[in-house]
Amino acid sequence: MTERTVGGGEVFSGRVFGVTVEDVLLPDGRTARKEIVRHSGGVCVLALLEDGPEPLVPLVRQYRYGAAAETLEIPAGRLEAGEDPEECGRRELAEECGLLAESFVPLGTIYPTPAYCDEVIHIFLARGLSRTEACLDDDEFLSVEYVTLERLAELCRDGGINDAKTVVAAVRTENRVQRTDNR
Amino acid sequence: MTERTVGGGEVFSGRVFGVTVEDVLLPDGRTARKEIVRHSGGVCVLALLEDGPEPLVPLVRQYRYGAAAETLEIPAGRLEAGEDPEECGRRELAEECGLLAESFVPLGTIYPTPAYCDEVIHIFLARGLSRTEACLDDDEFLSVEYVTLERLAELCRDGGINDAKTVVAAVRTENRVQRTDNR
Repeated sequence: MTERTVGGGEVFSGRVFGVTVEDVLLPDGRTARKEIVRHSGGVCVLALLEDGPEPLVPLVRQYRYGAAAETLEIPAGRLEAGEDPEECGRRELAEECGLLAESFVPLGTIYPTPAYCDEVIHIFLARGLSRTEACLDDDEFLSVEYVTLERLAELCRDGGINDAKTVVAAVRTENRVQRTDNR
Repeated sequence: MTERTVGGGEVFSGRVFGVTVEDVLLPDGRTARKEIVRHSGGVCVLALLEDGPEPLVPLVRQYRYGAAAETLEIPAGRLEAGEDPEECGRRELAEECGLLAESFVPLGTIYPTPAYCDEVIHIFLARGLSRTEACLDDDEFLSVEYVTLERLAELCRDGGINDAKTVVAAVRTENRVQRTDNR
């Protein structure tokens, strides 16, 4: 099952994303018009501070203009063209939370909206953390809060956190940490 | 923390989404330009077939032109303007999977991409299922597969499923079903 592009092109080119309108050959031989958001991809990082009695996870509280709401999310950012996802994740973790990581483990990727957008979000688990200076972009306004991994899982399950990538990262981290601990 | 719109407007108006470029007043008094995808919202449904030895969940396998990949997702659809989310969910479940539900329980909402898109996805848990005739839109090409709830959780954790809303729905369903069973 695939759908081949037969025409169309870009209708909007922005700083954060572009938009294309494309004519697509459907499996039955007809064509359909598709509107697609073109995005360079994202990275998010679940960081585990493991030097206390319980692992703590830094979360970023910020106003999200798209959602028109304040959200609680793990640190994240947009990939620059050609940028390595791990490098991007390390940059965001340092800038937003002031944290450096010894280990950066990939936990796969997700599609936030596969129907109409090509964005892929890379998920990382960061461990072995140490402090550096946080250094926000000059249009970022956010605060960092720490919750236990258990509380994070609870917030994801009960809807207290409703940012999709944060929920997926929490699920995959729980899985990874359990497997590692039982090894 | 909020950011107030002070200018800008629509730059693209499509069938599936629109795009606005807006001037926004930041907390420090400066303004920034934001590009936002405007979407009417989505609905997804995790349906539990509970008449066998283990609960089964219908998943939709389809080619997603946005992601340029075949994905495995729970049935989902786009809200029409002013449409009730439950009604939309019942329609999609019937059209894509040929299933009617006695009970339709809301499991909250998620933001797939809160930074640059206003889409909210409503999640429902459907139970008490019976069969009807599937009836796809004429540009939909998909197949339905059934997995156990346990296998679904595994696929979400290990990255076999990488559609964000499906992972969130699985997490919230596990939580709900456990709570109900332990009641």
